[in-house]
Amino acid sequence: MGSGCFKPAIGTRMPPEPVRLEAALLGLDWGTTSLRGYLMAADGRVLAERGAEAGILNVENAAFAVALNELAGDWLAAHPDMPIIASGMIGSRQGWAEVAYVDLPAAARDLNLYAHDDFARTVYFIPGLAYRNADGVPDVMRGEETQIFGAGTDGLYLLPGSHSKWALVEDGHITWFATFMTGELFAALKDHTILGRMMSDGADNDDAAFVRGVKHGFASNGALQTLFSARTLALFGELPESGVADYLSGLLIGTEITEAGLAMQDISDKTTIISNPDLGRRYLRALSCCGLSGVQAPDGAAARGQWRIAMAAGLLA
Amino acid sequence: MGSGCFKPAIGTRMPPEPVRLEAALLGLDWGTTSLRGYLMAADGRVLAERGAEAGILNVENAAFAVALNELAGDWLAAHPDMPIIASGMIGSRQGWAEVAYVDLPAAARDLNLYAHDDFARTVYFIPGLAYRNADGVPDVMRGEETQIFGAGTDGLYLLPGSHSKWALVEDGHITWFATFMTGELFAALKDHTILGRMMSDGADNDDAAFVRGVKHGFASNGALQTLFSARTLALFGELPESGVADYLSGLLIGTEITEAGLAMQDISDKTTIISNPDLGRRYLRALSCCGLSGVQAPDGAAARGQWRIAMAAGLLA
Repeated sequence: MGSGCFKPAIGTRMPPEPVRLEAALLGLDWGTTSLRGYLMAADGRVLAERGAEAGILNVENAAFAVALNELAGDWLAAHPDMPIIASGMIGSRQGWAEVAYVDLPAAARDLNLYAHDDFARTVYFIPGLAYRNADGVPDVMRGEETQIFGAGTDGLYLLPGSHSKWALVEDGHITWFATFMTGELFAALKDHTILGRMMSDGADNDDAAFVRGVKHGFASNGALQTLFSARTLALFGELPESGVADYLSGLLIGTEITEAGLAMQDISDKTTIISNPDLGRRYLRALSCCGLSGVQAPDGAAARGQWRIAMAAGLLA
Repeated sequence: MGSGCFKPAIGTRMPPEPVRLEAALLGLDWGTTSLRGYLMAADGRVLAERGAEAGILNVENAAFAVALNELAGDWLAAHPDMPIIASGMIGSRQGWAEVAYVDLPAAARDLNLYAHDDFARTVYFIPGLAYRNADGVPDVMRGEETQIFGAGTDGLYLLPGSHSKWALVEDGHITWFATFMTGELFAALKDHTILGRMMSDGADNDDAAFVRGVKHGFASNGALQTLFSARTLALFGELPESGVADYLSGLLIGTEITEAGLAMQDISDKTTIISNPDLGRRYLRALSCCGLSGVQAPDGAAARGQWRIAMAAGLLA
């Protein structure tokens, strides 16, 4: 295999037909903690897919070439002319090469690819996006833009996670987005503040506590004041300790929805959620508690986005 | 001395006259991390003052009697009839005995003392306060009520810290208060999220960064979205890494001021700040950045509050 600088590939699935007959594009979704590779046909169909725990933080000594060969060396050997396109944090300062952000508004065709040649063949990096809000404060994304362009067309998108992103697509352009540190904040509060002391382990499935948190967060004046309620409700015996974690999770998600609505002036659109199914269900539940509607995007947004951006860039012409 | 279950007393100061001639009340400000004792005359004058790192979390095996004797055994021996009054977390579930909260509105005379007899003589605990906001969610304080009654009369009070408290006093009654987890949140974000990675150590005195944070937080739609700006501004070279911690501190304090204003509908009153001078100056600076005015309360609010509550309870009659 290789130098063993990352853990072995996980999750391999092969279509019935021989992939080498059709493969036309290798897409890499290369993030902070994981790397996924998609072998695609000329029409964007995913022929095969592989994953490795070779996110940029897991690859030692910037041995990204080794990691890529370990993941997809056989595919590359079998298809010497197949272009490679990559999205995500691989194009950040901590990644393989830093690619400048593209400013909003940006359509798929505006994502000028960066030709990276520190590999046996060119790897085309998809740039991230930058946005300055009304106060002149910058916000950034890397990788989410590709998923958004892969998921659909116009509308409101939500990509929940450690750093949740909300984004608006109008006339095929991403015109606004904002980052909410909800997931990372939850983890820090749970593990490193007094709120965690009343949380019992396990039993992380108290829907009533979650809903109560969402509603309190959604109706509130902000997170700094409401956080303490996760402690006082438990102190007064009005929330079981087994529900404190779900309550806090709901509280933060409800607050995120409020803040997103304030930032956009309006959040009445149906929100399309791009995420793994569990987290997506959690946010759909929260949206519905707030009288809002959402829908989960089909799987495969990253690969579809890579293919669309490659097409727009003429990489598959 | 004693069992050595806590660290030695710190900060002793003695007046010129022999204290035993006048001492009429021993006040204990007994919190989570520290214990302070005030030997007071019948008119409330503080004759002597001592401190020890014997907060309830530092006293092992609930040896509170030992801690009290180590701090003030000589004072107690010299004044066999002197009443003892205590405020703070000593009256919490984790303290010496749990004292029920008093509901708002509450004046000094409403703080019915709890006579605790698990000591050579009675210790009178001052109860904390509980408040339910419009959503029925409880909030609590223990110790701050005593400082507020000691600091003055009607007005708006702010006691900044790990869990900042804002409180309103009207006609001598505390009629509203709210807890903001600002200080503890700052520590958790700094030490346990991606925001801390760009913070350089030392150099924690960037006033421009602090002011920028305050203004951005004060004008914002909430903390979840603005937090990420502490990273992006540094990423774009628009905030020096030496200023990221001050920026984040300002951002949270500005957000706290906004949330407090929303909770109260109005924050135009001059705010009286009860805290150590450094933290007080920080909040005064922040208030002024938000076009608001504040004033620092004189030292000694805890002792004065204990004396006033003891008077109202007839303990000094």
